[in-house]
Amino acid sequence: MTAIIEQFAHFTPSCLYIYIQFVDKPNGLTMHSPNHLLELFQRYREDNRFLQPPNELYAPIDYILDIGGKRIRPLLVLMACNLFKEEVEPALPAAYAVEIFHNFTLLHDDIMDNAPLRRGQPSVHVRYNTNTGILSGDVMLIYAYDYLLRVKESREGASTELLRLFNKSAIEVCEGQQLDMNFECRSDVQIPEYLRMIELKTAALLSGALCMGGSIGGASRADVDRLDLFGRKLGIAFQLQDDILDTFGDPEKFGKKVGGDIVQNKKTYLLLKAMEKADAPSLARLHELMEDGQLSDGEKVAAVTEIYNRFGVREEAQELQQLYTDEAYAALEAIEVASERKSGLKQMTSMLLGREY
Amino acid sequence: MTAIIEQFAHFTPSCLYIYIQFVDKPNGLTMHSPNHLLELFQRYREDNRFLQPPNELYAPIDYILDIGGKRIRPLLVLMACNLFKEEVEPALPAAYAVEIFHNFTLLHDDIMDNAPLRRGQPSVHVRYNTNTGILSGDVMLIYAYDYLLRVKESREGASTELLRLFNKSAIEVCEGQQLDMNFECRSDVQIPEYLRMIELKTAALLSGALCMGGSIGGASRADVDRLDLFGRKLGIAFQLQDDILDTFGDPEKFGKKVGGDIVQNKKTYLLLKAMEKADAPSLARLHELMEDGQLSDGEKVAAVTEIYNRFGVREEAQELQQLYTDEAYAALEAIEVASERKSGLKQMTSMLLGREY
Repeated sequence: MTAIIEQFAHFTPSCLYIYIQFVDKPNGLTMHSPNHLLELFQRYREDNRFLQPPNELYAPIDYILDIGGKRIRPLLVLMACNLFKEEVEPALPAAYAVEIFHNFTLLHDDIMDNAPLRRGQPSVHVRYNTNTGILSGDVMLIYAYDYLLRVKESREGASTELLRLFNKSAIEVCEGQQLDMNFECRSDVQIPEYLRMIELKTAALLSGALCMGGSIGGASRADVDRLDLFGRKLGIAFQLQDDILDTFGDPEKFGKKVGGDIVQNKKTYLLLKAMEKADAPSLARLHELMEDGQLSDGEKVAAVTEIYNRFGVREEAQELQQLYTDEAYAALEAIEVASERKSGLKQMTSMLLGREY
Repeated sequence: MTAIIEQFAHFTPSCLYIYIQFVDKPNGLTMHSPNHLLELFQRYREDNRFLQPPNELYAPIDYILDIGGKRIRPLLVLMACNLFKEEVEPALPAAYAVEIFHNFTLLHDDIMDNAPLRRGQPSVHVRYNTNTGILSGDVMLIYAYDYLLRVKESREGASTELLRLFNKSAIEVCEGQQLDMNFECRSDVQIPEYLRMIELKTAALLSGALCMGGSIGGASRADVDRLDLFGRKLGIAFQLQDDILDTFGDPEKFGKKVGGDIVQNKKTYLLLKAMEKADAPSLARLHELMEDGQLSDGEKVAAVTEIYNRFGVREEAQELQQLYTDEAYAALEAIEVASERKSGLKQMTSMLLGREY
């Protein structure tokens, strides 16, 4: 916004006023900035902490919700609502439901992966214990529905539509997690299967958040479908980028240790593509590297990355990411509201997909 | 029913016909026998198996749903619906939702308790693995909501009322499970706390099943409240009976190994009452027995049972169970439908609470 204002600094004040009106109220509806939406969400979260007894059950929920996270999914709910409606407050319980659900999946995933850390802090099952982690996760899932039921029905059947959208995503996330676990024990994973897995595990909840926000805002069925498509493409592009960054990212900017996927033999797009493109000796070497318990992590990462470079898998991944990014923007573009109303979601998309390599 | 028909065998055929009409159609509505309801439920279950991929995620759900269980909760849903309505088919998805939820809690509880067996078969986390157990349980919880959403709305707002009833019970069950886990590490558990714990852990879902069935049947708010009370009293009486049977049951009829609670130092009503009533030396002896790792299971069970007998805790437990049973019948009696319509629920209550000692 500041940049746009600067761009128009040579205009007369009245011109600028009109411009701001246009940006802030396309279609005569107030558009809320991502920061403002985030603030609204954080306030709602603060008003709805899990302070009730038994403390052993509920404290872990506040713990995991407090140790960070970018609140991408609740923001998507609110932004999608704001595409169609000035008032975003009715979408706040749904935004919270989605954030609770997302953190529930992280909590249970950390138990399944035996991950000691989450966002740099001890995971719930480490900070408390595994049984608490399982049970608090369970009750989080129930509370996600509890918050969905707090969304006021703007028209008949809106509540059940909202719950159906949520359920579809929630089931897909579990199916994606199961496929991801299956892939660990399989050596014949194909790229289309991988793309389907990340669509379920990562993209389905982004798309669910968008569809729910749109539905609360009063979007048409067709626009809800476009939001769904936008979310799915965005999510796949995001995960592909994550795969690329894990190997080729700048360690200082990435936040996680570069090369982690290679060390764990994770079947990412890069590895699957390398297996597809490599000649016989390189493929044999790749398998050797994956099975070699003697190598240091650094040696393994360097050797595998060298094979990736030799067969141009990074470029292939970037091209595919770009394809999904373009499709995401096209789906967003097709939504039948004034283009200016989409600025928040465009900003969000470029923030999510524009991370530096 | 057969017994009743025999009783009336000296009547003329037309008399018998009228009598059957009276029993079968009080208030002019068909009453379904528990067996018929069970059959309807089993058919619905068969039509809604979890056959979809990924098999690794869904097969454990069919497994746990197939290894038995008395289907008490779905029967309560259908019977409560049938109190008010002839057609019970609309309640079938809710009955299935409750059974799925119940089995989800068993699945996750078995992981938390590290229990190798469930209904005499390997538990899910043993038959498959712990991660599968966690994830399949999660998706079961989501499918419970999925089935609730399949209940056709008979009047505006019925779906959200149904979901609210379900959510309340589901949250209570988790809270009850947490309290139960807390009690394991506490030596100062009081009887009112224990009764509250079993109300949450055991009774809340029975009462939820009844309220949901009633709500689908079109019960008034007051009658839903009566069903709630009936379920809570029934559930507490049932758990007290379970405590008694675990120590004093006939091993052949009980189905589980008698004395298991004593071996595990489980804080049952019997133990808490014994601690309350015992004189100082007996109390010291009780603590000694609980901490003694040298004793055989049989010796420990015999010694603790002897203290129970000395202080009459079995009789106290039976009296309290009778009190809750009476309150359950009174709540059932107060429901504003013809008394004859309640015969199924009365039969069920006497079946649940009339197990032999």
